[in-house]
Amino acid sequence: MNKDPFLLSVLGQMTLEEKVDQLLQLAVPFFEGADSAGQITGPMAAMGISEQTVRNAGSVLGIAGAEEVINVQKAHMQTNRLGIPLLMMADIVHGFKTIFPVPLGIGCSWDMELAERSAEIAAREAAVSGVHVTFAPMADLVRDPRWGRVMESTGEDPFLNGEFARAFVRGFQGTDLEHDAERVAACVKHFAAYGAGEGGRDYNTVDLSERQLREYYLPAYKAALDEGCEMVMTSFNTVDGIPATGNSTLMRKLLREEWGFDGVLISDWGAVKELIPHGVAADEAEAAHKAIHAGVDIEMMTTCYTKHLSELVANKKVDEALIDEAVLRILALKKKLGLFENPYRGADPEREKEIVFSEAHRQAARELAIKSCVLLKNEAVLPLQPNQKIALIGPFAQSGDILGPWSWTGSQEDAVKLDQGMREYASRLDVARGCDIETATEAQWTEALAAARDADVIVMALGEHSDMSGEAGSRADIRLPEAQLELIRKVKTLNKPVVVVLFNGRPLDLHGVVEHADAVLETWFPGSEGGAAIADLLFGKANPSGRLTMSFPYSVGQVPVYYNAYNTGRPQGAPDAQIKYVSQYLDIPNEPLLPFGFGLSYTTFAYRHAAVSSDAMTVTEPLKITVQVTNTGNATGEETVQLYVRDLAGDVVRPVKELKAFRKVTLQPGESREVEFVLSESQLRYYHANLAHDSDAGDFVAFVGSNSRDVVELPFRLVK
Amino acid sequence: MNKDPFLLSVLGQMTLEEKVDQLLQLAVPFFEGADSAGQITGPMAAMGISEQTVRNAGSVLGIAGAEEVINVQKAHMQTNRLGIPLLMMADIVHGFKTIFPVPLGIGCSWDMELAERSAEIAAREAAVSGVHVTFAPMADLVRDPRWGRVMESTGEDPFLNGEFARAFVRGFQGTDLEHDAERVAACVKHFAAYGAGEGGRDYNTVDLSERQLREYYLPAYKAALDEGCEMVMTSFNTVDGIPATGNSTLMRKLLREEWGFDGVLISDWGAVKELIPHGVAADEAEAAHKAIHAGVDIEMMTTCYTKHLSELVANKKVDEALIDEAVLRILALKKKLGLFENPYRGADPEREKEIVFSEAHRQAARELAIKSCVLLKNEAVLPLQPNQKIALIGPFAQSGDILGPWSWTGSQEDAVKLDQGMREYASRLDVARGCDIETATEAQWTEALAAARDADVIVMALGEHSDMSGEAGSRADIRLPEAQLELIRKVKTLNKPVVVVLFNGRPLDLHGVVEHADAVLETWFPGSEGGAAIADLLFGKANPSGRLTMSFPYSVGQVPVYYNAYNTGRPQGAPDAQIKYVSQYLDIPNEPLLPFGFGLSYTTFAYRHAAVSSDAMTVTEPLKITVQVTNTGNATGEETVQLYVRDLAGDVVRPVKELKAFRKVTLQPGESREVEFVLSESQLRYYHANLAHDSDAGDFVAFVGSNSRDVVELPFRLVK
Repeated sequence: MNKDPFLLSVLGQMTLEEKVDQLLQLAVPFFEGADSAGQITGPMAAMGISEQTVRNAGSVLGIAGAEEVINVQKAHMQTNRLGIPLLMMADIVHGFKTIFPVPLGIGCSWDMELAERSAEIAAREAAVSGVHVTFAPMADLVRDPRWGRVMESTGEDPFLNGEFARAFVRGFQGTDLEHDAERVAACVKHFAAYGAGEGGRDYNTVDLSERQLREYYLPAYKAALDEGCEMVMTSFNTVDGIPATGNSTLMRKLLREEWGFDGVLISDWGAVKELIPHGVAADEAEAAHKAIHAGVDIEMMTTCYTKHLSELVANKKVDEALIDEAVLRILALKKKLGLFENPYRGADPEREKEIVFSEAHRQAARELAIKSCVLLKNEAVLPLQPNQKIALIGPFAQSGDILGPWSWTGSQEDAVKLDQGMREYASRLDVARGCDIETATEAQWTEALAAARDADVIVMALGEHSDMSGEAGSRADIRLPEAQLELIRKVKTLNKPVVVVLFNGRPLDLHGVVEHADAVLETWFPGSEGGAAIADLLFGKANPSGRLTMSFPYSVGQVPVYYNAYNTGRPQGAPDAQIKYVSQYLDIPNEPLLPFGFGLSYTTFAYRHAAVSSDAMTVTEPLKITVQVTNTGNATGEETVQLYVRDLAGDVVRPVKELKAFRKVTLQPGESREVEFVLSESQLRYYHANLAHDSDAGDFVAFVGSNSRDVVELPFRLVK
Repeated sequence: MNKDPFLLSVLGQMTLEEKVDQLLQLAVPFFEGADSAGQITGPMAAMGISEQTVRNAGSVLGIAGAEEVINVQKAHMQTNRLGIPLLMMADIVHGFKTIFPVPLGIGCSWDMELAERSAEIAAREAAVSGVHVTFAPMADLVRDPRWGRVMESTGEDPFLNGEFARAFVRGFQGTDLEHDAERVAACVKHFAAYGAGEGGRDYNTVDLSERQLREYYLPAYKAALDEGCEMVMTSFNTVDGIPATGNSTLMRKLLREEWGFDGVLISDWGAVKELIPHGVAADEAEAAHKAIHAGVDIEMMTTCYTKHLSELVANKKVDEALIDEAVLRILALKKKLGLFENPYRGADPEREKEIVFSEAHRQAARELAIKSCVLLKNEAVLPLQPNQKIALIGPFAQSGDILGPWSWTGSQEDAVKLDQGMREYASRLDVARGCDIETATEAQWTEALAAARDADVIVMALGEHSDMSGEAGSRADIRLPEAQLELIRKVKTLNKPVVVVLFNGRPLDLHGVVEHADAVLETWFPGSEGGAAIADLLFGKANPSGRLTMSFPYSVGQVPVYYNAYNTGRPQGAPDAQIKYVSQYLDIPNEPLLPFGFGLSYTTFAYRHAAVSSDAMTVTEPLKITVQVTNTGNATGEETVQLYVRDLAGDVVRPVKELKAFRKVTLQPGESREVEFVLSESQLRYYHANLAHDSDAGDFVAFVGSNSRDVVELPFRLVK
């Protein structure tokens, strides 16, 4: 427990009621001074909390804007008996006003510097707008593209997710959160394993073995905490039969005791009360009891704590020490953020005007958007030539819905649309909508075909609108809507080169797209500068370098499919494999349509002279793995050289490949570079049958290559 | 360890090599006296075992036929040094020559007497044909229709699966296996959780929490053992990271020590050696080491034991006591089956001719097939009238491929085809193929449409051929093949009543079928008497009474979907649920197309006066739950009255419904019957957070109804 004399003195002055209310987080309209104050109606009024409770509350949800933050905090400081400032929290996930690509796009950049910079810019914009804490990064491992929130993750690899989680935390928090008022505290979410919801249906049950949880799902959260992330948010799902928010094994034993996390743990929206529909609490009092025992400090948007903790303390069902501990954690974060000295912290209307959505920030967003796009196919049609007559067709041709989910502070109007970006290059550009996202009219088709008929090349801007992914955005069908597939078929009848530019928040089943398109560029939701960045790529000013961090399934019937799977006892294609009795589908391949790590460039790269420094690694002697990478094409390009490892015989089954390292190298045409990796014993450790984290002596294979499929094998042994 | 003096004396005479070879099971062609002896080529010869090893081997795989069994056993008794008889084993899954419906069909009968009788008949036919052990029942819980082996399970409910597992064991083994030579030993499989393979891909990785394993997956195997099942077969999959066949936690600790199973544990085909590709054994010696330590007695079709156990004993890596224990278990089963007294046991060519595929057996198969068919839709078109002009169209109209997978001893030629069955009733029947299973020709369409054009009603016999399900029969697309969907659309243009009769081994996505058909009858693979049974139903001689035991998903993107799921914290349709932020798909419902327990009849049933004897249950006072069921239609019909329970607040999350009991009642038109269930505290127990199996005091709901969706709610409390 925190021993800070100042904090203990504040705590000592608080009544039990004030302590309990300090654990409450309410949305901004509840608060005096808010622009929306008094607009609390319907379900929110139904919470039935008093004005006094709001005055005692500890934090605000979903607030941003220097002036409003100042107003709310000022009003609060006047009414809160002890003058305890409010923590201002908001979901600033991939940018504040300057919107960067969605995290799944950022993941495809494999670029930790740019990822960190995106979080830093988001933090600076948010901080001067008065935000203290952002509900990011999301470190959930994802394997099921039906789930709408895969767009908020960096993908299916635990190591890469951990690297990104660290980069985001560094960017949000900087190195001196206490004195740098233009940073915000980060809150890693959703603890734990929210990405493993059954059937890809949001909020659904998660069931995993403890080994699977520890080996794949937990490492990225842990990485964020190792980087100093201040807060953790609970997930909506169950973990081993108990919803995370009431799960004391997960929260109290693992997160707090085993990992030593003593920061603030906040529930996700309403998740404390949701212990009731989950069926592990009979009523709000039991929900409060389970959550406070699990170690949840802040209850977001329900009032089980507020209404029942005092009575539970009175009845001796909850030790007041549990409440003190939670209050102290919240107060400690407020102190760390300097709020007791300056409750307004970075909130600064002048600075807000100066830096928010500044040219420099937008340039950074453009740069990251360029790095996030993944070229999935290119049959000699890209890059486009400025003098070509181009038809730009599709519902995303002029759409500002390119910011993606979790961009509520951004402006679709201010986003650079694709047609705007392309007009910077193309002198002859015809634009037609062709269809809406899910419907089409004859008139739209007629207009589109007329535009297409005259063109040298057709660029089709297709995809999912942003509500088709994100929270509560699960889909059972992960193809493009039929209206758009029909548009592709119609356009294709003209027998002209077709480039498909995709806007979407999940890996799609691309049947109906890839076989008709001559080129496909996956841009995800690229953010404020999306149109400009895509145009840079389409016209060859920039060279595509993004690499997929989530497999694109062959079809939804193949889900889940991910690169770091186990071999099974009857793998396809093994030397002595039978034809029939192997692990496979009768009607589709085992392999995804596009594998983890995959992405094309306007140039090509050759991998030569791959070598390992020794055939034996020891605990004290790491291996050096080297490969010469050569740009064998005609354009300068950036390659992401990937190192994978396989343990051939473990104590438990081990993945056929696991990413261990990567290097990004930029090469001029004809240029070669030797890329070196150092691989050490600690990178070969995993959770054994007894959950010990250790490595095994024996045979391994290292793989180097440009993606998880196209690799050179380098066998070695670990000698222990 | 077995203390039987005779067995110990046999063991005492065996060399280590003889003991090790006793653990080997080989396919019939290896053995002298077999019809196929000497045909061992390719991979089997590549095993490289000596003639002496075959002479020492303990058991034979895949043998059936009295004469051949006698020949093989006779040759063996002459060459085996100690005259230890061979155990003759075979996959007799749903009938021997008289083929019953596939187990998923039998499951839909909810009829334990008929299920037991089917196993008894299979046992009698197999036993007189020389089989000693059948590799059945399969007690795997199944939730993913992509998996081809769902046809071999009785469905998605652990309680019902357990009841069927017991019935099959009783049927196979009888009550006195030792003296009743017309029964066979049963071998429950596949231990454990083979049904939970990821993505429904056969042999794929399984990952479950221990709670999930114990609560849902293990009970049916346990039920089989409680019924006295003699043997257990390992599964191909991993259980908590370790393939079952090398998993000592699962096999040695749970199965042997915790459950006290001291019978013979056999690997599935090749599963010992598959520890190598699984990646938990570096070589065959390590595979043998892991399997024998796990407690696997018989190695099926690989030779890791034979080639390496002696050397492992010599090197002190394996204690010879482990081998003795395994040998003794095998010898004990041989003794129990009376093989030391009569190595031929039931094998009897005369009796074989007499009872195999006898009229009485076929009659039983017809009866069970009738009970297994599920009427999924009926818009006043069924039953058919004998005087109607009927067109029977489709690839299953005259097909003998209605036995289903695992019917290698059956004869498709001898099966009653649908057209044959229908001709018993219909005087005017036109038959056309219409298309093949996966392809169609213009000529086929022309012929089919010509037949259909003249008809009063069109019966379409559609489905999957038997290789599209069963082992290694996983499919990512679970719709009917497009050729058949196209045939439906073409036939439907005639605007005539269409009855679809389905033959298939898994729940299908029925879009493209249900909306066009006026009636749909799911017949699974109905077995030898399929055509006769279906005709009985189509023409109303029998009234459909089957009830689904596996949910039919809305689409493959909804998989897994099953009735006994958890509520989540954000269920759809809860009183205060939001519209958007609930657990759902944007594009399809949460509910399956057809729920567990569903099935129509030619009559209707009303549920009235549902009541519970008290609002409080105690540990000593069970509740009585009563409901009056009335046949409100015009035909005699059989209803399956189902009782479900929900625990509203548990220590861990509990299913929204769990089947606890059911009663089958046959009612005349207008007849009413009060159905009574006794529900006791022990039925409310489940695995708690600490894995204690206990019940919770608090609120429950009982549900009675005709399926898992259409129920009456009866709240009660458990007072402890």
